[in-house]
Amino acid sequence: MSPQIPVEAKNNGKNERNFAKRMATTPKSCIREILKVTESPSIISFAGGLPNPSLIDVDGISRAAASVLKEDGRSVLQYSTTEGYLPLRQFIADRYKKRLGISVSPDEILVTNGSQQCLDLLGKVFINAGDHIGIERPGYLGAIQAFSQYEPEFHPVTLRKDGPDPAMMAEVLETYPLKFFYGVPNSQNPSGITYTNDRRRELASILNAGNTVFVEDDAYGELNFSGKTSASMWELLPDQAIITGSFSKILAPGMRLGWVVAPPDIMEQLIIVKQAADLHSNYLSQRIAYEYLRQQNIDDHIKKIREAYHAQCQYMIGMIREKFPDSVDYTEPEGGMFIWLTLPAGVLSTDVFDEALKLDLAVLPGTPFYTDGGGNTNIRLNFSNSSEQKIRTGMERLAGVISSMMDNPGS
Amino acid sequence: MSPQIPVEAKNNGKNERNFAKRMATTPKSCIREILKVTESPSIISFAGGLPNPSLIDVDGISRAAASVLKEDGRSVLQYSTTEGYLPLRQFIADRYKKRLGISVSPDEILVTNGSQQCLDLLGKVFINAGDHIGIERPGYLGAIQAFSQYEPEFHPVTLRKDGPDPAMMAEVLETYPLKFFYGVPNSQNPSGITYTNDRRRELASILNAGNTVFVEDDAYGELNFSGKTSASMWELLPDQAIITGSFSKILAPGMRLGWVVAPPDIMEQLIIVKQAADLHSNYLSQRIAYEYLRQQNIDDHIKKIREAYHAQCQYMIGMIREKFPDSVDYTEPEGGMFIWLTLPAGVLSTDVFDEALKLDLAVLPGTPFYTDGGGNTNIRLNFSNSSEQKIRTGMERLAGVISSMMDNPGS
Repeated sequence: MSPQIPVEAKNNGKNERNFAKRMATTPKSCIREILKVTESPSIISFAGGLPNPSLIDVDGISRAAASVLKEDGRSVLQYSTTEGYLPLRQFIADRYKKRLGISVSPDEILVTNGSQQCLDLLGKVFINAGDHIGIERPGYLGAIQAFSQYEPEFHPVTLRKDGPDPAMMAEVLETYPLKFFYGVPNSQNPSGITYTNDRRRELASILNAGNTVFVEDDAYGELNFSGKTSASMWELLPDQAIITGSFSKILAPGMRLGWVVAPPDIMEQLIIVKQAADLHSNYLSQRIAYEYLRQQNIDDHIKKIREAYHAQCQYMIGMIREKFPDSVDYTEPEGGMFIWLTLPAGVLSTDVFDEALKLDLAVLPGTPFYTDGGGNTNIRLNFSNSSEQKIRTGMERLAGVISSMMDNPGS
Repeated sequence: MSPQIPVEAKNNGKNERNFAKRMATTPKSCIREILKVTESPSIISFAGGLPNPSLIDVDGISRAAASVLKEDGRSVLQYSTTEGYLPLRQFIADRYKKRLGISVSPDEILVTNGSQQCLDLLGKVFINAGDHIGIERPGYLGAIQAFSQYEPEFHPVTLRKDGPDPAMMAEVLETYPLKFFYGVPNSQNPSGITYTNDRRRELASILNAGNTVFVEDDAYGELNFSGKTSASMWELLPDQAIITGSFSKILAPGMRLGWVVAPPDIMEQLIIVKQAADLHSNYLSQRIAYEYLRQQNIDDHIKKIREAYHAQCQYMIGMIREKFPDSVDYTEPEGGMFIWLTLPAGVLSTDVFDEALKLDLAVLPGTPFYTDGGGNTNIRLNFSNSSEQKIRTGMERLAGVISSMMDNPGS
C-alpha cells in the first residue's frame, strides 16, 4: 500500500527546516558565545556571573552525598515527585518565616532546575504570543531569553536608584494589561540596585489596582553584604506575587537547584508544566542539599560568602575611583555579584568589549539587558569570581581601554 | 506621580487568573494522581514505570560520587556548559558506534534532564499552535503531555504488531505537512511493541519523500531481553532523524540524565531553548555518571537488568495465560518494561482501575495514551518494579476483577 521510494531518491529541501516561529524572536545567545571565549584560563573575566568556587563547601557537600547514598541510596536514585522533596520544601518555607517573617506553605513551593527554570515555566503558564509583560530596564537577560520564547510584547520600566520608576509603571499598566511584571528587587542583575522598601510599597499599591502578578526573582537576597533584608512582594502584594529562589549562589550552582513560590492556583499550573518539562528535578541533588542543610549551619556559610563578596565589591569600586575617568558612572551595590557602569558619551560598550578582549579581559556589554534597544553605554562587571589581584589587573586594563577611547572617540 | 491606592482598597478579580491558552489544551495529569494513590506501600502497583530499585548499583554510584567530589569538587559543583560534559557526550557517541554501528558526533548530542526534557525542547523548537505532528496510536503519554503545551494537531497512526501502519502513515503525510512523527521503535511505551527492521525501512522511505523528521525515542533500546539491536532511523533516514536517549533505565532515574541526538541545524536551536529553559543539566550528576561509566562495565550491568526484566515479564505473561479469560489479548514484548492488555468487549479499563484499587492493586487505563479518544479497552501493566510474589498476587486479583466484570457486563 505504501509508496516505495528508494531512500536515496529524494533529498531536496532537507535542510530547509520549518522551525517554530518563536525561534525567530529569541535573541541570539551572545552570552553563551562570550562565555565560551572567556573560558580560557589566560583571560581575566568580569563577564560571567559565577559564584566564587573557593566558597563552595566541597567537604560538607561530599559528606552529605556520602550520607544520603549510604543511608537511602535506592530511594535517592529512583524517580520522585514533581513537586520536589517535601523536607527540602519545608526547610525553604521555614527559612522564609525566619528570614523575612513571611508565611509560605511547602505546598506553595516547587523545586526547579535552578531558578532559570522558574522563568521558563512561568512563561509557559502565563504568556500567549502577543501578551504584554513588564520588565525592568535594564532587565535580567536570562529572563528576557526565557520569556522571549513565548513571544510576548515586553514593556520595560526604567530602573532608578531606588527601584522601577513608579510613574512609568503606572502608565504602562494603564495602557497594557500586563500578565506579570518581572523584577529582581534585591541586588538586581545586571545593575546591582536594591529597591527601597518605600518603592516596594508604592509598586505594590499600583499593582494592587489590577491583577498583574509581580514575579520577584530573589536570587541574591541572601547575598546582601550587611545581611539586611527588605520586604518581599509576597507580603506587600498578597495573592499577586510569585518568588523565585536559588541554591546556586549559597550552596552550589552545579547541583541546579532553585524553587518557585506561588499561590495555589498558579502552583497547580506550574506543576503541570514542570511535569511535562522533565517529570521532576534531580532527586539526588535535592536529597544531598537537604542533608547538607540539616547537618551544617547555612547561616555561617552565607555570612562567609557575604563578607568575601563585600570585600571584592569594595575593591573593584576602589579601583574604579582610583583608575577610571570621572565621567564613568557606576552603581554601588548593597549585595549580589554585579556593578553596572555607564560610559561617557561616545564610548560604546561593544567597542570596549572588543578592545578589552585584545588585552585578555572579558566584560559584558549592556545591550542584551534591553528589550527595546539601548545598553550600548553600559557594561556589567562581575566581582564575585575574581581575586583582588585579578580585579586590580583587569580594572587597570579596562581603565586604559576606556581612557584611550575617550581620547579617540569614534575610532 | 503614581496613584496612591491603599493596599487593602481593591481585591476583586484577584483569583481570576488569565493563564496562557495552552494550559486549557494540556491533558489533565491523571497519571500524577494515580501515582500518588499508588505510593502507599500496601498497594501492589503495575501502574507506574519505575525501574527496579534493586538493580540500581548504589555502591558503584557512591564510589563515583565520592571520587569526582574528591578529585574535582569545586569544578563539578560550579556552573557548566549548556551542551553538557564533553567526555560524557563522547561516551554516548562511542556507544552508538559500538552498539548500533551508527556515526554520531558529540557535537550532535545535548545532555538533558532525563529524556522527558527532550520532548519539551523539541516541542518548543518545532511546534506552532495548530501545526501538525504525528504520533503512534497508542502513544507515550509523557510525549502527548509535553507536545500538547505547544498546541499542535495530533495525527495518530495505528501501531500494529510490527510498527506503525505504513498505509496510514503515507495517507497522513499526504494530507498534513507533519513537522515530525514521534515514535518509540524499541519496546514501545505503552504497548511493548518493537518495530521490525522491514517496517523501519518502509517508514524511512515514506518519510524521505518529504522533510518530516522522525523523533526516535529510544528509552528502552538497551533493555531488549536478548540484547538484540535494530536499525536506528538515524541510519535509515539521514538528516531527518532525531534520537532521544536516557540513563534512567540503565543507571538511575533520580540523576535525571537523558540526551538528544540531532543534526547540527536542529541542535543549534535545541541548545538555544535548553539554555533558556535551565542553563544546563545537573553537572554533578553528569560527572558522577561519566565517572561511573569509566570505572564500571556498563554492559555487565545492563545484562543483569535485561535478565531480571525478562524473567519478570515472562512470569507476568505466564500469569495471564494461567489466570486470565482467553478473550483478554496481550502483547509479548521483546524488551522494555510494559505489557499492553486489550480487554473483552464491554469491559472498560476505567472500571477495572476502580475495582482493582479497592483490592489494593493499581493498573493504568489506556485512555491517556490516545490523542483522539480510545484506549478504554486497554490497560498498561508494568512488570519491572514488582517481585514475582507481587506479580502473582496482583495478577490473581486482576484476573478476578476482569472475570467478574465479564460475568456482569455494564455493572
